[in-house]
Amino acid sequence: MKAIEWLDDRVRILDQTQLPGKEAYLELNRHQDIASAIKALKIRGAPAIGVAGAYAVALGALKIKTTSKAEFLKDLRNIIQTIAATRPTARNLPRALERMQQTAEAVKDVEQVKKALVTKAIAIHSEEAAATLKLSKLGSELIKDGFTVLTHCNTGPLATAGYGTALGVIIQAHEQGKKLKVLATETRPLLQGARLTAWELKEAGIPFTLITDSMAGYFMSKGEIDCVIVGADRIALNGDTANKIGTYTLAVLAKENNIPFYVAAPLTTVDPALASGAEIPIELRSPDEVTHIQGVSIAPEGIEALNPAFDVTPHPYITAIITEGGIIRQPFEEGIKNIFTNKSNSEIQKQG
Amino acid sequence: MKAIEWLDDRVRILDQTQLPGKEAYLELNRHQDIASAIKALKIRGAPAIGVAGAYAVALGALKIKTTSKAEFLKDLRNIIQTIAATRPTARNLPRALERMQQTAEAVKDVEQVKKALVTKAIAIHSEEAAATLKLSKLGSELIKDGFTVLTHCNTGPLATAGYGTALGVIIQAHEQGKKLKVLATETRPLLQGARLTAWELKEAGIPFTLITDSMAGYFMSKGEIDCVIVGADRIALNGDTANKIGTYTLAVLAKENNIPFYVAAPLTTVDPALASGAEIPIELRSPDEVTHIQGVSIAPEGIEALNPAFDVTPHPYITAIITEGGIIRQPFEEGIKNIFTNKSNSEIQKQG
Repeated sequence: MKAIEWLDDRVRILDQTQLPGKEAYLELNRHQDIASAIKALKIRGAPAIGVAGAYAVALGALKIKTTSKAEFLKDLRNIIQTIAATRPTARNLPRALERMQQTAEAVKDVEQVKKALVTKAIAIHSEEAAATLKLSKLGSELIKDGFTVLTHCNTGPLATAGYGTALGVIIQAHEQGKKLKVLATETRPLLQGARLTAWELKEAGIPFTLITDSMAGYFMSKGEIDCVIVGADRIALNGDTANKIGTYTLAVLAKENNIPFYVAAPLTTVDPALASGAEIPIELRSPDEVTHIQGVSIAPEGIEALNPAFDVTPHPYITAIITEGGIIRQPFEEGIKNIFTNKSNSEIQKQG
Repeated sequence: MKAIEWLDDRVRILDQTQLPGKEAYLELNRHQDIASAIKALKIRGAPAIGVAGAYAVALGALKIKTTSKAEFLKDLRNIIQTIAATRPTARNLPRALERMQQTAEAVKDVEQVKKALVTKAIAIHSEEAAATLKLSKLGSELIKDGFTVLTHCNTGPLATAGYGTALGVIIQAHEQGKKLKVLATETRPLLQGARLTAWELKEAGIPFTLITDSMAGYFMSKGEIDCVIVGADRIALNGDTANKIGTYTLAVLAKENNIPFYVAAPLTTVDPALASGAEIPIELRSPDEVTHIQGVSIAPEGIEALNPAFDVTPHPYITAIITEGGIIRQPFEEGIKNIFTNKSNSEIQKQG
């Protein structure tokens, strides 16, 4: 199973809206179709949509006809804007698009640029996969033998086009032979927990129990949860974290019950340009996702519903942020600054 | 619309599992059928199942053939046990059954007992209805003009066979001309919020927005909720309150965001014999209610799920408990004791 795969002139994605009932793949060769797939959550998860966005730029670039670099860049900007407009919250998508833009600007010849963009998109994919494997290994030290771990939404290979973030940490701890049990929240409205995390945990052979989102507090208050671990869509410099709606609630419940609350994400999810979570744009999706479940109406016709797809967990609720650059503890701002300084130093050394 | 109605030799109930799609009524004349209807949540809500239980005893009693009082009481005990075994958490059901039992014991002649049981069941129904109207009026003072009120599960006429508890308070405030907005949680797994509260709010003409359970924290943290009001299934002497799963979470979130958290319930929900919520039995329902929504599977086949139907909110999270005997504030134990002392005094005066 691969969430997304580059096939030279097209990408193949696993349509996540059809899981777990059907394992259906889509082959797309137009950037607009990838944009639509991202909007419709056929591919989702912050790291995975970063990768999909990069591939979409590469596919769009391959179709640009001009030999003028200026015209090429103009067309490319339109392509990038289309992809950027799909989903506002995750940092990974604009980060990947920025890198593609920089790549295009750095090379003179249009044909060379196209090749460079394909190479860069593949590199973004493999870097993201490597980052999630590394953070999963680092984070696994926090998961002790015998733990019951609560997780939310879906953060495994499907969400990351790699190893996983929160679920990657869990899978890594399991592969180390630790005896674990997972409580997975179903994650309404779109049921990524019930549909995708349950599917990935079943595949991985990790014992788990599915619960509704409203049950997490019950099990925490009964002392049945050893830690909570979630992914992230965007992390501000102070550690405030946007993640799937319901995450803030789990963080408050964890604090109230003295349970460690961990966030796992690659550094591409971190947005050091944002001072705090107040500046993170929160996607509002269609009310139909609330009033309907898998197309079936669950409420009276014509009523009003709201559907914020994410919430922001203020940093004081977070015990640690697990990244491939290390496990960051409070004060997060200092830790994040250090990692980004080291990272740009080592990137300069690599390039130099 | 009546949730439950006595029709001399049978009861008519509105099948709440079919709402909001279909307004279907069932006429039942066997106590076993009412027991099944309670188990299947065709009638639900703590006050309403108390009323249904009383009617079930009356119907069961009418069918007992013996003229021996001793044999009659033996048969009646079996009937009462069948009904008591349906759902363990709500206090109202065993309370109503105790009152029916006492009525049966107090009268000598079997035919007279049958009449007395019918009269008592009708009295329990009208007392419960009157209690919910009174508590709704009392509680409405807590709901100010312009408030946005968050509520959970369903606590209106459907749930109470009367005026309502939490939703009764809201409807009462609305009828007083206060401008209100309600945020209603869908209340997974069985969607009583999306299906029933939305239906009742729409009928009442009160502006409301449906959200998933996981979104309540988001709106609280944004300062958009003025108070939370919920019903109860059982309240211990110290104020600890069992209510629909997810209530504890809302209470923790309300405390964290300095939002008043109110519980509304008739005194038949209060169980002064229980010192604390730790002693309240919590119903575990079928995992199928988690893995399926309205019969449609939402998770991989054969996985494990858990389905506690209630949780207990410790009393420190509760701002006030609204009853027909008055609004009780901390320390709840003192307030509850006072009301029950006054109540038994006035009952003694009434009888005397």
